[in-house]
Amino acid sequence: MAAAISPLAPARFPDMPPVAGVKLATAAAGIRYGGRTDVLLALFEQGTSVAGVFTRSKCPSAPVDWCRAHLKGGAARALVVNSGNANAFTGKSGRAATRLTADIAAGAAGCKPSDVFLASTGVIGEPLDATKFAAVMDQLVAGAAPGAWQTAAEAIMTTDTFPKGTAAMARFGAVPITVAPISPRVLQSLLKQGVADSFNAVTVDGDTSTSDTLLAFATGAAAARGVSKIATVSDPRLPALRKAFDAVLANLAEQVARDGEGARKLVEIIVEGAVSKSSARKIALSIANSPLVKTAIAGEDANWGRVVMAVGKAGERADRDRLSIWFGGIRVAHRGERDPSYDEAAVSATMKKPEITLKVALGLGRGRDRVLTCDLTKEYVAINGDYRS
Amino acid sequence: MAAAISPLAPARFPDMPPVAGVKLATAAAGIRYGGRTDVLLALFEQGTSVAGVFTRSKCPSAPVDWCRAHLKGGAARALVVNSGNANAFTGKSGRAATRLTADIAAGAAGCKPSDVFLASTGVIGEPLDATKFAAVMDQLVAGAAPGAWQTAAEAIMTTDTFPKGTAAMARFGAVPITVAPISPRVLQSLLKQGVADSFNAVTVDGDTSTSDTLLAFATGAAAARGVSKIATVSDPRLPALRKAFDAVLANLAEQVARDGEGARKLVEIIVEGAVSKSSARKIALSIANSPLVKTAIAGEDANWGRVVMAVGKAGERADRDRLSIWFGGIRVAHRGERDPSYDEAAVSATMKKPEITLKVALGLGRGRDRVLTCDLTKEYVAINGDYRS
Repeated sequence: MAAAISPLAPARFPDMPPVAGVKLATAAAGIRYGGRTDVLLALFEQGTSVAGVFTRSKCPSAPVDWCRAHLKGGAARALVVNSGNANAFTGKSGRAATRLTADIAAGAAGCKPSDVFLASTGVIGEPLDATKFAAVMDQLVAGAAPGAWQTAAEAIMTTDTFPKGTAAMARFGAVPITVAPISPRVLQSLLKQGVADSFNAVTVDGDTSTSDTLLAFATGAAAARGVSKIATVSDPRLPALRKAFDAVLANLAEQVARDGEGARKLVEIIVEGAVSKSSARKIALSIANSPLVKTAIAGEDANWGRVVMAVGKAGERADRDRLSIWFGGIRVAHRGERDPSYDEAAVSATMKKPEITLKVALGLGRGRDRVLTCDLTKEYVAINGDYRS
Repeated sequence: MAAAISPLAPARFPDMPPVAGVKLATAAAGIRYGGRTDVLLALFEQGTSVAGVFTRSKCPSAPVDWCRAHLKGGAARALVVNSGNANAFTGKSGRAATRLTADIAAGAAGCKPSDVFLASTGVIGEPLDATKFAAVMDQLVAGAAPGAWQTAAEAIMTTDTFPKGTAAMARFGAVPITVAPISPRVLQSLLKQGVADSFNAVTVDGDTSTSDTLLAFATGAAAARGVSKIATVSDPRLPALRKAFDAVLANLAEQVARDGEGARKLVEIIVEGAVSKSSARKIALSIANSPLVKTAIAGEDANWGRVVMAVGKAGERADRDRLSIWFGGIRVAHRGERDPSYDEAAVSATMKKPEITLKVALGLGRGRDRVLTCDLTKEYVAINGDYRS
């Protein structure tokens, strides 16, 4: 939290309208940090649909297990998120802590524990004292109000240097919609498809959290304005909603890359000409996660040799002698050799920018993909070397 | 090259005896660096067997292609290694450079070009001017002499902070052997098996060089002292030779980890109780290559939560609730929770040591493996951010 705000941060937190059917509140429960909020409560009106996707880790946190177990019903009335402690690798006591947190929230909000969703972020392996939520829950429920998105986002920050939020509107005929009435099944389909090219296409360091949790809630409050429920994936209104929904996911995911620990450069990696989209994805991630590529970018060095290295390391089909590479639109390598018109000065100038696009053309097929990442700086090492202490 | 010698370096270069049938010479050819040697020539007597294993990169360097193409014969008379330029991703001109280098060396040494082996290390993507070898080759051949191992090792350094060498002896009856007469086929089998738990079990940052080349030469000079050739893998003398050979590989591989860019800690990662050895290897490498684990170790923080993260990320079978973790022999986590007798002070003390063993027990099966790595420091970022400039 001591780190300066990322130079890649948006200029300010966006204007986000209240969403009908959602109330928010935050509190300082003293989970780990002093002098700051660390709990977020969201209350949802009856009829709210929920969908979720989670970390692929084989060692997920207790709240991830909780959410997975209770997602089937597709109904949600409350969300409790805390920072400072991930409640991961906490064994039986971790499971007990999720149960207790849900009971506390359900009691205060007047709903079933199974309608309470949970997420925890912070240190792994420290027992989470859920009784701390009891001490603030009545105050949270009493104070819950619409629209306090920024304070909500601030309460769940860990190594983040700025709070993250975004909003999008869709229009169904004359009715502007921030959250549509939608069945949990369709919402889950929307989320699962949307995450592939947003959160799953962003990487900071290649590591995988025990706690990654992406939940989507739809209060359905637009029903009161005459909007009928979207209950099938063939609903003709779905494309407009999907567009807005995907824009929200893409924007939030990009903010994650913009706030990678110590990040000074936002790096977009485009791979085209691969044998398939999934092959392009693997190669793009190999480049994005290469410490040698990331440190070169931090050093403002257009070291495309390391890009070749990362392509070769991916294990995917690649032909060295067909490979071309661009930094910031400048072709530096063409068909397996340094570009004949390579101009170090022009390339160096482009590397000084805060946002850099690195494109690789494999010349094999039509597979294309894109991922976002950031550079690897000394500040990354400082932040992550000192995080617990 | 400006970096200080790694604090993990051996106290001195080892005593290495001359090996009968091998002569060495070095020169400053001005490949990239000024004021230092950058070419090594090794000359081998007739009858020398050669074996090799190479990078798994799909974009290997031109010298890797050259060696692979000429390994079939199994005979070698010369080896040329240069630093400063990897001759990788250099297209047709790179292939021409390998051919020219082999022709130059063959002409000076009086052998066939196909008996010349090549390796290049350094920057990727810069054309290599092989005529620079012509300018020094006669001098190299004339000056080649037995036993100059340290100067040989120094000529092929790039970001290395110390030269790497080691020797081992085997005894066949009364005859001490540094290099046995051995058929190329048996030597290749020895190398292929030996590399699995040595060089392939060492990682600095998870990246894969375009140029990794491990060549083994056996001059067979011991034949003159009455030692018959080892021509089959069932030869009863092979176990003794394998033991010495594996010791050499293990020692050299460990030196690579000790000289990772910016390394301040040598980290041994042991995974046991996995469902198989290969599963244990994947989990060990996931831990070893995790930037979050590596920076925690650099910060002397026994952040075992990140070890859990890295286990979960590996995608291998793991049961969070059976997992136990040790740092430096101190158990910090047991069966999915923080160890009941966890003592932060004791663990912190062990983290201050320059060599740290991190052990994970999965409690699933009998699969066990071990890899070596180093920490990830700010110096890593500095060295690799500034490498080309």
